[in-house]
Amino acid sequence: MAQKFQTLPGFRDFFPEDCAARNYIFDVWRRVARRYGFVEYEGPILEPTELYRRKSGDEIVNQLFCFEDKGERDVSMRPELTPTLARMAAARQRDFRKPLRWFAIGQFFRYEKHQKGRGREFYQFNCDILGEDSRLADAELVALAIDLMRELGFTDQDFRIRISDRNAWVEFAQKNSVAEEDITTFLQIIDKMERTAEEKTASQLEAIGLSLPQIREFLESGADASTDLQGILDDLAARGFASYLEVDLSIVRGLAYYTGPVFEIFDIGKGMRAVAGGGRYDQLLNLIGGVDLPACGFAMGDMVITDLVRETPGPDKLLTEAIEADRAIEVFVIVADPGKQAEAAGIIQRLREAGKRVHFSFGEAKVGKQFQAAEQAGAKHAVIVGSEFPEVSVKNLAARSEVKATPDTILEALDS
Amino acid sequence: MAQKFQTLPGFRDFFPEDCAARNYIFDVWRRVARRYGFVEYEGPILEPTELYRRKSGDEIVNQLFCFEDKGERDVSMRPELTPTLARMAAARQRDFRKPLRWFAIGQFFRYEKHQKGRGREFYQFNCDILGEDSRLADAELVALAIDLMRELGFTDQDFRIRISDRNAWVEFAQKNSVAEEDITTFLQIIDKMERTAEEKTASQLEAIGLSLPQIREFLESGADASTDLQGILDDLAARGFASYLEVDLSIVRGLAYYTGPVFEIFDIGKGMRAVAGGGRYDQLLNLIGGVDLPACGFAMGDMVITDLVRETPGPDKLLTEAIEADRAIEVFVIVADPGKQAEAAGIIQRLREAGKRVHFSFGEAKVGKQFQAAEQAGAKHAVIVGSEFPEVSVKNLAARSEVKATPDTILEALDS
Repeated sequence: MAQKFQTLPGFRDFFPEDCAARNYIFDVWRRVARRYGFVEYEGPILEPTELYRRKSGDEIVNQLFCFEDKGERDVSMRPELTPTLARMAAARQRDFRKPLRWFAIGQFFRYEKHQKGRGREFYQFNCDILGEDSRLADAELVALAIDLMRELGFTDQDFRIRISDRNAWVEFAQKNSVAEEDITTFLQIIDKMERTAEEKTASQLEAIGLSLPQIREFLESGADASTDLQGILDDLAARGFASYLEVDLSIVRGLAYYTGPVFEIFDIGKGMRAVAGGGRYDQLLNLIGGVDLPACGFAMGDMVITDLVRETPGPDKLLTEAIEADRAIEVFVIVADPGKQAEAAGIIQRLREAGKRVHFSFGEAKVGKQFQAAEQAGAKHAVIVGSEFPEVSVKNLAARSEVKATPDTILEALDS
Repeated sequence: MAQKFQTLPGFRDFFPEDCAARNYIFDVWRRVARRYGFVEYEGPILEPTELYRRKSGDEIVNQLFCFEDKGERDVSMRPELTPTLARMAAARQRDFRKPLRWFAIGQFFRYEKHQKGRGREFYQFNCDILGEDSRLADAELVALAIDLMRELGFTDQDFRIRISDRNAWVEFAQKNSVAEEDITTFLQIIDKMERTAEEKTASQLEAIGLSLPQIREFLESGADASTDLQGILDDLAARGFASYLEVDLSIVRGLAYYTGPVFEIFDIGKGMRAVAGGGRYDQLLNLIGGVDLPACGFAMGDMVITDLVRETPGPDKLLTEAIEADRAIEVFVIVADPGKQAEAAGIIQRLREAGKRVHFSFGEAKVGKQFQAAEQAGAKHAVIVGSEFPEVSVKNLAARSEVKATPDTILEALDS
């Protein structure tokens, strides 16, 4: 007996229904990004491993699908897009007018524990503005993120954007005489604070000359902590987005390269899952590509958002409709007289040339069987080609109505 | 100075213009396949290496990007989709009504010599009918392939489908008493004949009891060599596709798994490049997944077809228009009074919610600079928000005409 092959753990097969769901999410990502005037790009799935050693967090580097290729290069399947974007933008930034508004939809790979909402492979929407230091650019990205959620059918009852500013923390540290070399450590303490025992946080802070009450007080300051944050909030309020926003200074984001405002989308149901996140990273393009371009961006993965869509009635309905539309057939051509196979082929071709989605039965099936196949395909119409050709019947399968037509009038008959 | 990172040899960066070209090809693939009633699926990019050892030709196995993952599995970046399709279809074939009409658009990886029209990474359109042994299914695939080319703007002056039948050769071999165990060797001799010295072919044939003149005579027989081929040609003629077709029995196709009609699209310009190819493979699903499902399919890569589109004036024009459309901005919102930033933000949001593609300048640029940015973005219209707000100006940048509007009437003003 033949060996049964299996999908690797953490990797997905996309059967047609899954693929339709994936494409629906992709379409929303693409549609909203384009409305914001962004253009799509894409990089390679395989990159030199060194590209990730340079900037990604340790966690990411430890999870690389890395290997030596047949040319003895140390290569990795990409775990994220930002280093590739930095490489690409640096290589050709002179060719483009700033700011660049670029987005990408692609697949990424991390060898991590396989669990719900997290695979070893996932798709991600990446969206970045390069070459712009106005805080309006940060606001534009937050607005785009909100509109992605709204386009999927979510409301302000379903999600929030938590927004913060790393710079506010850096200024706080400087004002409180934290040594320059301790600032990265300090940001890591804040990042992990929510998941760390209080005493541990307190002693870590003490080691760099700070106290927990000081931090708590600053956390309370909200938007007052940063004029940048205030500017972003004002712009978003002008767009009508105030109800989606929440200042939460405890958000610092793990990755080392953020330099200013940062934000996360999370669901406000029981899950409190992070759905997307990003922020400003003004030094990364210099680090990777040697060009000085301020930048901000965010990413949204496909797995958590798809789970969330399926769990939320409004968004789930839109998804279900998209899946239905993906498989719906417009016309099923039925050959009622085996001698008219060639005439039917001509009609099938004609309908497809008019953009119709057309099915028919291969081989010589009985007419009843062909009608059954038409129903099973969910066809709206059947066109019956029989011995009366060039007269054909056009049947509306749902309405159970029927009209006669000729090859020249079928399209009108279908649209009536 | 920062290290300059480079793309791996044979891998591509898709800058926005390249990505727009890629997406245009994808859109054509998807549009035509859907018109034929096919549904999209996708498999993992990484698979157990054993999946390819089982059925792919030696050439493909030698070109695998294979490695051991962190879980000590022998894995490969996929070089082709058919084994994955066979695995997926076998795993869930009971859930689907036959025949399946499935297509996929994805990326593949082969470590081979990097040259024009061939990279180490490429996209491929795969299109298969599973669970159908009627030759009308083979014809349907050939028709779909022809319509892909036509949708791209090619005519019968640009390409041909060469069609053949492996079974005709198997029957020929059997009729001429070639031993059963020599038939695979025989097919390989025919496959390589065009690229092999005549004497060598003659002596190879002699070794299995055949002669070169016998083969030549059979090659001449064309469609008469096989009733299957004749059926396919008749059906395609009924669809109006006769002028695209050419019987060429020298086509056998290299891969071991084909079992019936096979075909290739090639360009008839100087290149004579193969653009796509496929055929019937009735045993593969059994071999991979242990289920008995007849199947046929074909694949088209993105690299040769994109080169061909760019070299051919009609198709190139369509591509160029698609690239233009990808970057075209509909409305550029200009803030003529810095005090009206918030009002402008509201209008931007309103236009985007109506589906318009909208740009604006971040930060406080002079009005002249903003107009310049609007022109550079190729915007059709500018909406100017100034001190007269709620009155705004809507300017058609091409026609240099201008009308006044309010936030409530901007959409009408844009469409007029």
